Amino acid sequence: MNDSVLQSFGNKIRLLRKVANLSQEKVADLTGFHRTYIGMIERGERNVSLKNLKRFANAFNITLESLMKDVQ
Amino acid sequence: MNDSVLQSFGNKIRLLRKVANLSQEKVADLTGFHRTYIGMIERGERNVSLKNLKRFANAFNITLESLMKDVQ
Repeated sequence: MNDSVLQSFGNKIRLLRKVANLSQEKVADLTGFHRTYIGMIERGERNVSLKNLKRFANAFNITLESLMKDVQ
Repeated sequence: MNDSVLQSFGNKIRLLRKVANLSQEKVADLTGFHRTYIGMIERGERNVSLKNLKRFANAFNITLESLMKDVQ
């Protein structure tokens, strides 16, 4: 039940990425993560840490609050 | 530099806890975490995971978006 938050966050990252018209590879460049890690996150397979959430927020140039909007 | 997000989050948890007039022990009860873990988080000493962020949001009965408001 709790893992649904990981899929919800993965969907949010995919949405933000698509809206920005970015490839997983480009998001990897922006965040400094490996491309395969981006894919795992989008599939809800990783329990992302707060420090890494911040790296995503920075990459998309949004606040942590915006990053988590609609994630549940 | 990146670790400042952990202290910012710790400050937010302490604020939410004080506003709700709860002890660290009560927040531990509500989240299912150990009281010492709550203290470490408030001091910015733990890199909290997304699943655990969700447990805090549930404990305070707020969204993840609200939980992360003003965390930077």
